[in-house]
Amino acid sequence: MTGTTPYIVDGLQYCRCSREIFKQMRQGGLDAVHVTISYHELFRETVANIEKWNRLFEDCNDLVMLGRLASDIEKAKKSQRIAIFFGLQNCSSIEDDIGLLEVLHSLGVRFMQLSYNNQSLLASGCYEQEDGGITRMGAEVIVEMNRIGMVVDMSHSGERSSLQAIEISERPIAITHANPSFWHETPRSKSEHLLKSLAVADGVIGFSLYPYHLLGHSDCTLHSFCRMVARTAEMIGVEHIAIGSDLCQGQPSEELQWMRKGRWSKQQDEPPKFPQQPEWFRDNRDFPKIAAGLLEIGFAQTEVEKILGGNWLCFFEKSFTPSKSA
Amino acid sequence: MTGTTPYIVDGLQYCRCSREIFKQMRQGGLDAVHVTISYHELFRETVANIEKWNRLFEDCNDLVMLGRLASDIEKAKKSQRIAIFFGLQNCSSIEDDIGLLEVLHSLGVRFMQLSYNNQSLLASGCYEQEDGGITRMGAEVIVEMNRIGMVVDMSHSGERSSLQAIEISERPIAITHANPSFWHETPRSKSEHLLKSLAVADGVIGFSLYPYHLLGHSDCTLHSFCRMVARTAEMIGVEHIAIGSDLCQGQPSEELQWMRKGRWSKQQDEPPKFPQQPEWFRDNRDFPKIAAGLLEIGFAQTEVEKILGGNWLCFFEKSFTPSKSA
Repeated sequence: MTGTTPYIVDGLQYCRCSREIFKQMRQGGLDAVHVTISYHELFRETVANIEKWNRLFEDCNDLVMLGRLASDIEKAKKSQRIAIFFGLQNCSSIEDDIGLLEVLHSLGVRFMQLSYNNQSLLASGCYEQEDGGITRMGAEVIVEMNRIGMVVDMSHSGERSSLQAIEISERPIAITHANPSFWHETPRSKSEHLLKSLAVADGVIGFSLYPYHLLGHSDCTLHSFCRMVARTAEMIGVEHIAIGSDLCQGQPSEELQWMRKGRWSKQQDEPPKFPQQPEWFRDNRDFPKIAAGLLEIGFAQTEVEKILGGNWLCFFEKSFTPSKSA
Repeated sequence: MTGTTPYIVDGLQYCRCSREIFKQMRQGGLDAVHVTISYHELFRETVANIEKWNRLFEDCNDLVMLGRLASDIEKAKKSQRIAIFFGLQNCSSIEDDIGLLEVLHSLGVRFMQLSYNNQSLLASGCYEQEDGGITRMGAEVIVEMNRIGMVVDMSHSGERSSLQAIEISERPIAITHANPSFWHETPRSKSEHLLKSLAVADGVIGFSLYPYHLLGHSDCTLHSFCRMVARTAEMIGVEHIAIGSDLCQGQPSEELQWMRKGRWSKQQDEPPKFPQQPEWFRDNRDFPKIAAGLLEIGFAQTEVEKILGGNWLCFFEKSFTPSKSA
């Protein structure tokens, strides 16, 4: 079964990437990964992160390349490499400056979440009490993202903001990493209504394998995960579902504090730790197990190929090319 | 005569660009211009300048496009547009961070002067008493510029620094805008020894039309300018000479203060003014007059074509493609 999927594309990871992890991606059969390069970092800090990525590309150019267009996935596969697509999990990197979107797009950024758990300048986050929807700047930012070819990602946003983003955006949007509420109810999970709206607008959701997003957390079974995938497929169509593993391989636990608290809070949680991955999805090498699990539960091979990569590939094709003439 | 030159390329301008100036470039027959986007601006300020340029490209995409490769000149010409290549007149934009070179290259920057009149982190400037040559960081920056495809420009650097840059650089370097000392002796002018060394290393000098660089300043005659071009051609070969007009159309006089003093000095000159252009080269529309002057003085048509654009085109072809595999 392994290796029969034409393309494997992961819709979101936040690994501390290294030659070793890139090799594991290859072992898992991955052809493309959307990687998070920033959470709460301001513009200059995100540029420093990009500089580190540029060094990685230089040092590991036998294994990875920067992805700019969907067609780079094929290019990467042909040279036995992985295409890496940059994304931001919050809008801190554009500060209050809409012109930074195009600058960041030129530097390779292809995804941006409009908010991360909290209220942002653009949208509400999924942990806010009140979701005021897309802000004035948010609406303009969506138009600009559509123009330049950057994906609106609402994984950590509130429901109302997400529905409005779908409405405003002329291109399909993504929820790169989340699971449905019907399976595991959390503020980060997505309602049936939202998922259906996403699919009607030709969007894609990537199912998360981050333990806190799984029913039973680290003890979640592959069977339970695959049943959830099947039920979502019935609900919104198999063309609109994919994987966004949210893998955080190799990150020190301080990173979790940064993700959760950034610089916006003085309160410290008890030192958080990354939860243990379920035994059937420990790291990048385990993508074939998900393919196997989906086949096992009754998906056809062609459907598994869509879920594991084909759907993201189609979505990327609609997403990254600038709409402006230039 | 007008329009018989296949390509007209200006090796340096610092105009306050606008639709009107772009139209004048077209009237002058220009196909490509290296434009200065920053002098003493730090990285974030240069990004803000690029944002303004991005707006100009969006608003005037019937007239101009960002040039990334030499082949963009042909692409621009075919669509009746001008390819604009970004450059920095000082190294302030990279601060003390070598990784910013690749970031700025991704944003379109294709030229950087290692110093501007003063000592910089990389090299000495042409107005310093002492020229210590290329610094430790400077040597590494040249190697990195060679790797990514960014031109080392020594127009405002000291002689010793310039000779060392030629020595260290594996790619040919440029003096985008300056004139020879034999014609008009100033600290900004270039010695015979430097010009010969530049040419031996396959570099190019662009002759400046900034009045202070001209013999007799605003009163300089076209004939005198063309005789200087002819003498330089005899000295270093017609393949190594070009135009770098240093046109500063539309700039307010405060800009001259910024160019000269940046933030490095508390001393103010008496409010400087941009000098008046000679009557035969008022602005971008007058390029054909230079072509005419060069023919008049005895250059062959093919030589004029090289000087007006062909030599820069060849030089750009050797300069902008990253040498790294990617």
